[in-house]
Amino acid sequence: MRTVALTKESTKDILENLLKRSPNNYGKFEAAVDEILNKVKTEGDAALFAYTKEFDKTEICADTIKVTEEEIKEAYEAVDPALIDVIRKALVNIRSYHEKQRQNSWFTSETNGTMLGQKVTALERVGVYVPGGKAVYPSSVLMNIVPAKVAGVDQIVMTTPPGKDGKVNPSTLVAAKEAGADEIYKVGGAQAIGALAYGTESIPKVDKIVGPGNIFVALAKKAVYGYVSIDSIAGPSEILVLADETANPRYVAADLLSQAEHDELASAILITTSKEFAAKVSEEVDGFVKVLSRKEIIQKSLDNFGYILIAEDMDEAIEAANAIASEHMEIVTANPFEVMMKVRNAGAIFIGENSSEPLGDYFAGPNHVLPTNGTAKFFSALSVDDFVKKSSIVYYSREALRKIHKDIEQFATSEQLTAHANSIAVRFEDEEQ
Amino acid sequence: MRTVALTKESTKDILENLLKRSPNNYGKFEAAVDEILNKVKTEGDAALFAYTKEFDKTEICADTIKVTEEEIKEAYEAVDPALIDVIRKALVNIRSYHEKQRQNSWFTSETNGTMLGQKVTALERVGVYVPGGKAVYPSSVLMNIVPAKVAGVDQIVMTTPPGKDGKVNPSTLVAAKEAGADEIYKVGGAQAIGALAYGTESIPKVDKIVGPGNIFVALAKKAVYGYVSIDSIAGPSEILVLADETANPRYVAADLLSQAEHDELASAILITTSKEFAAKVSEEVDGFVKVLSRKEIIQKSLDNFGYILIAEDMDEAIEAANAIASEHMEIVTANPFEVMMKVRNAGAIFIGENSSEPLGDYFAGPNHVLPTNGTAKFFSALSVDDFVKKSSIVYYSREALRKIHKDIEQFATSEQLTAHANSIAVRFEDEEQ
Repeated sequence: MRTVALTKESTKDILENLLKRSPNNYGKFEAAVDEILNKVKTEGDAALFAYTKEFDKTEICADTIKVTEEEIKEAYEAVDPALIDVIRKALVNIRSYHEKQRQNSWFTSETNGTMLGQKVTALERVGVYVPGGKAVYPSSVLMNIVPAKVAGVDQIVMTTPPGKDGKVNPSTLVAAKEAGADEIYKVGGAQAIGALAYGTESIPKVDKIVGPGNIFVALAKKAVYGYVSIDSIAGPSEILVLADETANPRYVAADLLSQAEHDELASAILITTSKEFAAKVSEEVDGFVKVLSRKEIIQKSLDNFGYILIAEDMDEAIEAANAIASEHMEIVTANPFEVMMKVRNAGAIFIGENSSEPLGDYFAGPNHVLPTNGTAKFFSALSVDDFVKKSSIVYYSREALRKIHKDIEQFATSEQLTAHANSIAVRFEDEEQ
Repeated sequence: MRTVALTKESTKDILENLLKRSPNNYGKFEAAVDEILNKVKTEGDAALFAYTKEFDKTEICADTIKVTEEEIKEAYEAVDPALIDVIRKALVNIRSYHEKQRQNSWFTSETNGTMLGQKVTALERVGVYVPGGKAVYPSSVLMNIVPAKVAGVDQIVMTTPPGKDGKVNPSTLVAAKEAGADEIYKVGGAQAIGALAYGTESIPKVDKIVGPGNIFVALAKKAVYGYVSIDSIAGPSEILVLADETANPRYVAADLLSQAEHDELASAILITTSKEFAAKVSEEVDGFVKVLSRKEIIQKSLDNFGYILIAEDMDEAIEAANAIASEHMEIVTANPFEVMMKVRNAGAIFIGENSSEPLGDYFAGPNHVLPTNGTAKFFSALSVDDFVKKSSIVYYSREALRKIHKDIEQFATSEQLTAHANSIAVRFEDEEQ
């Protein structure tokens, strides 16, 4: 890992380098994605079957596109019971955390006869995309389904690409069933996003699509945004550790690598106020890389997007951390809660030397679907909020309206919206002299 | 207004007709918008000055792009003091409603040494776009700025196109100042969105862009989404009135026309269980159209997207209303609160015969920036939530982590993420036998 002095310029260079990973820079695939979406919109299931044959090298049809109860039973038999047990334990924590995010409808009323409120309603139907291929992440299935379930969504429709054998990975199916997916379809890629956005003969149209995916999935989600809702567009994973000389360099090194192993675009950054600590972490990183099974990915990720930054003081370190706005942030300093208060931009914040980032990936309860690529400045973790919408409620009595009707008429008239003014005035036309 | 029997088929036809108005269907302008955005990104202020000359027919430069205190003073002198008074009264209500939307950070802790939480932080800098041209809507300025201000946003940057005289409309300036805009720049169109998203020499980069605009503005917002955050993409205005024979046909007709006057793409729909009532509303509509100043727009809007639908019963009427998911909905029935409970999809719900929709546009307090074009199924009114983001907080003590460390290691290993497993295991390596 390269070690660099933290300055305004090095921060700027790093930010520019990290932004190269943005899904906004993959415009060249847009036309292909648009073609897939249009075909699914016009041809429905037939397009899904054709694309699945082309991209997933397997045949599905109207009879086999939906995962059956029998297939789910087989999946339970194929998965290590110890893993099913861990999934269930994790689910207890994930549900418990998300239940605290629930918001009530509310209203206020006054004796003059006005009532205002905000009505919270769950989305009716949600689509959860689960990637297939080499990497199988049952934890991600839990994190995408639980908040929808806790929000009270009526129907959760999952899609995931089948393998060449036409089957879905068993641990994906077990996680989906445990978390509460209502229907599971064997379709992947941009074509799955099209099916969820427009509906086909087999797959119902949903109100919102969530879940990670490759660049085709990300572009397809961006393309259907507005027609349905989507979650944030996920970029490569990131960790930023803010540490001083009181931290354990071996733990910090291990945590940096836990994100670097995700893929070659992942980013691992340490910002520290101690040169000696930086050197020790660098040494520990080198030691770990040699023995870890995903060493090639890790090495590329560190070479491309890994940094150890030496800051003059903690305030400068925090300022840089806020500018980078990392997906995951660990604070391992003498007084980590005080530092946390100064952190403005981070998807999830892990405090103290035992709050290793993977604890949050799997088990603690908060969602691991987090804003990446600097978007923690304005986006939040996936949450129950993502699966509800709010309607404003307005009730005015005749007396309450009478008191202010001239004000509204004046405001509307000033905007030259005379039919707006008329709609208020007409209610008092009999009372005018 | 055409009167149609409500059936599954007529509902489907109406939905298809309404969706024709979607900004998703204006792909032909995308290339032009992309060019403008790229030019602003690479050339900064120079591009803004050139586009303002081309599109707004006026010259601005580094010295004149920012609205001065002197210009704001002039604006206050130009605006009717009675309007300023109404703006201030409306602001009291709008602030009061939005203050109720504020969410606290929260945490839970357990004596075993775990703490989980959700930290709510306001966005740092927000851009508010305000359209120029013929239609000047100070009410819209209030509705976009107040929730950001209540959320605690540090800096609110407004942009609005100058007129040919290089000036901004005075009532826009007064509304901006009253609501709390920190800086106002004279730039409009896609170039303004580019400036807010990327920053230029004069205009600072923001975290989120909100506010309505023409199709170029809407496409530009969609293009920069992900790089910054945006509000929902606004479509033409809509009203859906659900009424039975107890409603006043004259009031309902006036309310339908209050939305039809917005523009030719606006939609006004009445769903009623009474044929007689429908006929009376139709007659009142014809009477009003003749005398209203915006009669030409209203007539076109009604011809294109106006409907009176006769339902068999109230449940059928509610089902259709939920399918249409209107921006504004009025419930004028014998028992409007009971009907409201069955309404799932609507941006804002106005209850009873005195809660005329323009009351919400100007005065009651809830936001008038609302989801359009069926997106009330998954989007909400602009709110304080739009101007904050949430970071998850995780703290585990060593003892708490020890109890579950094997579970996390098993989960990570099952996903073949060995560096994840290692980051947990390394903390207990000294304790292993």
